[in-house]
Amino acid sequence: MSVVDLARFMDDLATESGQAILPFFRAHFGLDDKARGGAAFDPVTEADRAAEVVLRNMIRQAFPTHGILGEEFGSERLDAECVWVLDPIDGTRAFIAGLPTWGTLIGLKRAGAAVRGLMHQPFLNERFFGDGASAKLRNARGERTLRTRRCESLKEAILATTDPRLFAEGEEAEGYRRIEPAVRMARYGADCYAYCMLAAGQIDLVVEAGLKPYDIVALIPIVEGAGGVVTAWDGGPATEGGRVIAAGDRRLHAAALAVLNP
Amino acid sequence: MSVVDLARFMDDLATESGQAILPFFRAHFGLDDKARGGAAFDPVTEADRAAEVVLRNMIRQAFPTHGILGEEFGSERLDAECVWVLDPIDGTRAFIAGLPTWGTLIGLKRAGAAVRGLMHQPFLNERFFGDGASAKLRNARGERTLRTRRCESLKEAILATTDPRLFAEGEEAEGYRRIEPAVRMARYGADCYAYCMLAAGQIDLVVEAGLKPYDIVALIPIVEGAGGVVTAWDGGPATEGGRVIAAGDRRLHAAALAVLNP
Repeated sequence: MSVVDLARFMDDLATESGQAILPFFRAHFGLDDKARGGAAFDPVTEADRAAEVVLRNMIRQAFPTHGILGEEFGSERLDAECVWVLDPIDGTRAFIAGLPTWGTLIGLKRAGAAVRGLMHQPFLNERFFGDGASAKLRNARGERTLRTRRCESLKEAILATTDPRLFAEGEEAEGYRRIEPAVRMARYGADCYAYCMLAAGQIDLVVEAGLKPYDIVALIPIVEGAGGVVTAWDGGPATEGGRVIAAGDRRLHAAALAVLNP
Repeated sequence: MSVVDLARFMDDLATESGQAILPFFRAHFGLDDKARGGAAFDPVTEADRAAEVVLRNMIRQAFPTHGILGEEFGSERLDAECVWVLDPIDGTRAFIAGLPTWGTLIGLKRAGAAVRGLMHQPFLNERFFGDGASAKLRNARGERTLRTRRCESLKEAILATTDPRLFAEGEEAEGYRRIEPAVRMARYGADCYAYCMLAAGQIDLVVEAGLKPYDIVALIPIVEGAGGVVTAWDGGPATEGGRVIAAGDRRLHAAALAVLNP
């Protein structure tokens, strides 16, 4: 499959999964289930599963030899050269709260490296796409190339993290607590948008922990394609998740690693 | 001016201020100002000021006897019966980070009470409107009436607060730290969307402190119009800002006040 066809296929994955998810966003059916004593209806789980079924079926049909790793339905053929890594709704708590900062993450690994990534926010109709060499955003305003911005020092940096309570007590939380007071501004609650806004030159640094592979694989080619860097806190690959740091400027990445690993 | 005309006028305020703000959102002009040694260009301040000028001019022309309280340009005629309370960009840090969870707040007080409120998110094209008796949301999906949801106990509640670091150390931070572990889920970083999503039945409780009048006046008629309650932590009016609590269910409001004021 050519590069153009692959981009179009990923676009189709985003469109179809978005249509599966949107009816559940801010949906109110079954709200009184708990009051009636029945099992609670969980819109985010329903939407997650509906979208992942759509994505898996499309991938199996187009690429029967590829592997798939998804949040809801586990893994298949992880020993394949190409493995799709899927998180239909990254930012579950944003989704539950009705805030449009969640996104659908569709990543592709080849021989273990994250080579293509797409983040789709269907309610806003924004798509961020990256292939490690370039990255772009398409929304109602049109399409534009994404570039991270220059920011070499922590004291000038805007930092984002999904939730400061997600760092495990001990060296992990201590590492984060050294970073936060060193930056100009720290913003909570951005989920996958943090990485996309880093690619767009709005945010300089993302520091997180406890990530799953499907939380990060799709975002790596977007950030790298925009000129940024994503690694584990130890400087190794971020493809397995865990403790992850992303920076728009390599000098800032080095400065932040030095604070996280004193 | 009739009720319909007032609603249309507020709609026009939202439209015009949104057009003033949007060119600055995710804008990149002047990014290297600091590197060149010049004064830093601050898109959010520029947008805030441009929008507030638009709003003030429209209000002065339509209602020359009304008062105006705004974030950027102070107050005029605060002793008038009707006073407009304006925050062109509530959620400054979201705006800076490129996240579309900021909003334009346009409130109207009459004889000291918050009687009309509008929250506009121009990038998403969502408008939340309330008059204390009813509330509605208009966006690309159409228009719908907003109703808060039932939720009587803290242990079932979804809580939102903009940033847990905003509570002053002492009784204020201690009060918040008693609430957070008592709820089902706490979400950070929602700014004005927290109140609007409470009105929409997605969030049950908002607890904040350090608010200015223009951070909250526009949101009161939206929450109250949807069936919720907004007060200060001491149970008094929230119109002056400070420590504010909003709940979708009066029983939850009472339960939360009891924890904040043991």
